[in-house]
Amino acid sequence: MTTDRIYINPQDVRNITCIGGGPIGAGWSAFFLARGYEVTSYLHDPAEEPGLRALIDNAWISLQELGLADGASLDNLRCTSNLADACANADFVQESAPENITLKRALYAQLGELVPAHVVIASSTSGLSMSEIQADCATPGRAVVGHPFNPPYLLPLVEIVKGDQTEPDAVQWLVAFYELVGKAPLVLRKEIPGFIATRLQEAIWREALHMVANDEATVEEIDLAITNGPGPRWAIMGPCLTFHNGGGEGGMAYNLDQFGPALKLPWTRLEAPELTQELRDKMVDGCIREAGERDYAALSRERDRGLVAISKALKACAED
Amino acid sequence: MTTDRIYINPQDVRNITCIGGGPIGAGWSAFFLARGYEVTSYLHDPAEEPGLRALIDNAWISLQELGLADGASLDNLRCTSNLADACANADFVQESAPENITLKRALYAQLGELVPAHVVIASSTSGLSMSEIQADCATPGRAVVGHPFNPPYLLPLVEIVKGDQTEPDAVQWLVAFYELVGKAPLVLRKEIPGFIATRLQEAIWREALHMVANDEATVEEIDLAITNGPGPRWAIMGPCLTFHNGGGEGGMAYNLDQFGPALKLPWTRLEAPELTQELRDKMVDGCIREAGERDYAALSRERDRGLVAISKALKACAED
Repeated sequence: MTTDRIYINPQDVRNITCIGGGPIGAGWSAFFLARGYEVTSYLHDPAEEPGLRALIDNAWISLQELGLADGASLDNLRCTSNLADACANADFVQESAPENITLKRALYAQLGELVPAHVVIASSTSGLSMSEIQADCATPGRAVVGHPFNPPYLLPLVEIVKGDQTEPDAVQWLVAFYELVGKAPLVLRKEIPGFIATRLQEAIWREALHMVANDEATVEEIDLAITNGPGPRWAIMGPCLTFHNGGGEGGMAYNLDQFGPALKLPWTRLEAPELTQELRDKMVDGCIREAGERDYAALSRERDRGLVAISKALKACAED
Repeated sequence: MTTDRIYINPQDVRNITCIGGGPIGAGWSAFFLARGYEVTSYLHDPAEEPGLRALIDNAWISLQELGLADGASLDNLRCTSNLADACANADFVQESAPENITLKRALYAQLGELVPAHVVIASSTSGLSMSEIQADCATPGRAVVGHPFNPPYLLPLVEIVKGDQTEPDAVQWLVAFYELVGKAPLVLRKEIPGFIATRLQEAIWREALHMVANDEATVEEIDLAITNGPGPRWAIMGPCLTFHNGGGEGGMAYNLDQFGPALKLPWTRLEAPELTQELRDKMVDGCIREAGERDYAALSRERDRGLVAISKALKACAED
């Protein structure tokens, strides 16, 4: 599936085009400006420019605190509502247009004509399929999902998903480029609805909606339960390593052997899959791989050091 | 349902009995020691003492960093494997015995005899029902669930749930006491399986198990998706306020009106409840109440300040 198309060396990228003036498009623009790039922001309507600049100005406060790249400046931002002009010099395009499949298909048909075929186009879509988005694009091979988490200038995750017609080289290029600029790309092995992070987030969200619908908890109670409970832990360790650590010296194996039966309990409205030997082994082996040389004591220390650091940092924030 | 039983003034509590030598029991012991109390730890088997002390020593490192109360000392810990001796002077009992209903019912039958009826007994159970736990207790009115999150010495949440026979006064006392010692008590309005935080956590966990079972993601990918994505945000804002903020100026109302149809999409295996007008209004009103005077810009600044603080704090941890 690879072609002889030559993608630009990620280190040679200078000009980035960000499509969209909402929080995600503006967030990407701010991020790339902070990394020292020339950014052209395409706005559907010139009237969106003040809103875009307000979002970028807000992001800039945080980006400055974290440290700007050499030469980074808000002066490197240019706005235009002419798509051909916006794409003229692009070495990379990050598209964050509204989540509407008809609109995106038409947009990628245009981008296919305007953007040279060796330039990668990443879509910030959180819910649409790249196979559909790229369907009317004449040069679909370089179109890939690059889905950030809000705010894109602070959270490192970018989920990378290819469509039916995406070339593996474009995926590799995008991984290399995101890593170069300091993001944490995560390539999906399958094109699944909601990708990985949104699926996990959506499970919490729907359980929360059920609880509110049934007067089991209020909005405020749900939020307090997370921020005072598992929330800070998830900033440090994902759910699997958390439960591996929660299993004590015995890790995930002990955890599943002890709490496996609890998967049948109505602790959420989501039914668990059957805990087959194969699934058990995948979970246990995955946790052992992920933990590496960190034993129970080391993981507990790491968790505690992180929680103390977060507790102090947020306390200082609140008092500031 | 209130009696003329007089509970001790929470401020007069001096002696606390912690039952159980595992991570939760030891974590509570460490926490109460750090708050300056005399702590008696009941261990089923005297051989558990070195393990208990190792867990407490580890917790103490973090507790010292966060600041100890006047007079707090590890010397205020006493261990015993005689339950009557353990409970002799208790002004409050925090029970963290193994999650086995037969064992807990028998334990509460004993505690009912040993602990004066005006002393509150809180159970750290995460999954058992207080109505069942207290069934064989002669003085069930003061027995309440007080479910912490691991590690109990660092995460503030304690979910409070009453059983059929629990007195409202005991619940009020426990709320006042936990607040006094710096915890964040959350009283459940219904005795539901998994309480609030564990239900939300379990929804993520089961979706993760499905994804691993179906080779949609590995253990490591799931954990990275959380820690690099929504995880740090949940340390600052719960899922409801996060989506209220994600809706921009329009807040949760805009979010539900725009993404309501997405609740029908297979973004997780958990089916959403129907988004009735009543549910929509509860979500919107709840978010408006929770946000208070904080508008979109203020919430975004708060989120960003928190994320920058967490990012810097965890980076410093990793480099330390």
